[in-house]
Amino acid sequence: MNSCIDCLPCLLRQTLEAARMSTEDVALQETIMREILAELAAMDFDRTTPIISGKIHEIVRRHTGVVDPYKSRKDLSTARALEFCDTWARSAVEAADPFDAAVRLAIAGNVIDLAALTGITHHEIEETLRGSLTAQIAGDSIEAVRAEVEAASDILYLADNAGETVFDRFLIERIGPHKVTYVVKGYPSINDAVLDDARHAGLDELVSIIDNGSDVPGTVLELCPPEFRERFAAADLVIAKGQGNYESLSDSDARVIFLLKAKCDVVARALDVPTGSLVVKIKCA
Amino acid sequence: MNSCIDCLPCLLRQTLEAARMSTEDVALQETIMREILAELAAMDFDRTTPIISGKIHEIVRRHTGVVDPYKSRKDLSTARALEFCDTWARSAVEAADPFDAAVRLAIAGNVIDLAALTGITHHEIEETLRGSLTAQIAGDSIEAVRAEVEAASDILYLADNAGETVFDRFLIERIGPHKVTYVVKGYPSINDAVLDDARHAGLDELVSIIDNGSDVPGTVLELCPPEFRERFAAADLVIAKGQGNYESLSDSDARVIFLLKAKCDVVARALDVPTGSLVVKIKCA
Repeated sequence: MNSCIDCLPCLLRQTLEAARMSTEDVALQETIMREILAELAAMDFDRTTPIISGKIHEIVRRHTGVVDPYKSRKDLSTARALEFCDTWARSAVEAADPFDAAVRLAIAGNVIDLAALTGITHHEIEETLRGSLTAQIAGDSIEAVRAEVEAASDILYLADNAGETVFDRFLIERIGPHKVTYVVKGYPSINDAVLDDARHAGLDELVSIIDNGSDVPGTVLELCPPEFRERFAAADLVIAKGQGNYESLSDSDARVIFLLKAKCDVVARALDVPTGSLVVKIKCA
Repeated sequence: MNSCIDCLPCLLRQTLEAARMSTEDVALQETIMREILAELAAMDFDRTTPIISGKIHEIVRRHTGVVDPYKSRKDLSTARALEFCDTWARSAVEAADPFDAAVRLAIAGNVIDLAALTGITHHEIEETLRGSLTAQIAGDSIEAVRAEVEAASDILYLADNAGETVFDRFLIERIGPHKVTYVVKGYPSINDAVLDDARHAGLDELVSIIDNGSDVPGTVLELCPPEFRERFAAADLVIAKGQGNYESLSDSDARVIFLLKAKCDVVARALDVPTGSLVVKIKCA
């Protein structure tokens, strides 16, 4: 899907955060903001938001030399998610319809920005996760997801943020790890998971992991190296987590199951669901 | 106070809203956004945010020809505020310490964006207003405000948004309307009150009203005509409502009582209060 002028304030907020996380030099932060404003003034709205976002983070990186500004935040997210993974979350999955619960937790991982929740208690996070187990799902059904993954034998599972990576474990276990290749970003991009983050989450012991060779917060195939594009084309099903993957793959010709929270009006409109919904969307090839 | 890079996403959100309220032509909205991004890229952060905001709205106006895009929204705000004014609000003021309650309602008017609350019930708005009657006040005390206004004999009361104008009535009544000159904007600026809005609110029957001859969402003295600057200098006390007036007058050499909600981190930091606080701030001349 294309970006639009609604994305501008949000992109600018993202820039500000990245600039602040990369340098404490206020004059440098200002220089970065000015360059990005000029970039946005000339930007092509026919490009997807992850492409523009990638360009923004490239500018921040060029000015500051900081390659992974979200590293400590990603580590915190992963650590907090792991606290839930093998205690409450595993028993929640086992107590319910395990496939249904696993899909819901994979989406719920996308709901909570664990690193942002420093003032929020363990109990409150658990309540949010628990809420996802009974929340209404917008778009398509989890039953349809079950049918899709049962019929597929080579599934690419496109990860999103570092923290939520932890919650992908249950769904991969239910699908069968032998059928799944887990895909992280090639280089740091906001708080998206790279190989190290997936290892922190313990996923390397469960499933085969590759990276997409790219540094944008989504899966923009034309920016990925040929090896990844071939691997993508060879899979018979793609599971894509989060808004960035939806924005970049909604117009692709692959068979994709999108699992996400529709966090903003632009994406919610494109999906035809209420803003804030937990969404399952199955796109035919 | 100066603006800073934190203001950029917010200014851009404001631009987007104003562009949308002024024209349905998507291509024109895009042109406006591009011009404003370029403007912001070169902007001087030593200027206050209301100056930049004024410039932005001038660009929107130049492209669309729409002078008062918030007119219908302001009318709705005023109508909704009036529903409370002579029923619940008047009895609430009379039942409590009337001066204390009047100051609180003047601030509470700044808390609620009445036009944005289309999905919210009369009862819920009443609950929010009622909450302000007992909420903690950050900064200085209402007792100090009482002493200031009792000692003053020529008070300029600088209005903010159209809807909250209605709630200024009680405080003007308590101060004594003969001591007060109520000041609205000279020309439309976002949802700030102009003369027509103050008349809609019925304030012309209570108090003398003038306009400041300017079209920025604050009181930027250097952009006001000499007559207003002289009137401002002659007053022995200024009461200034809302963030825009704080941002533009915090460094002036007048004696000012600021009444506002600290809606954003930038203003809250400048005031040294928690974001979201209801604030009374008395600035000595």
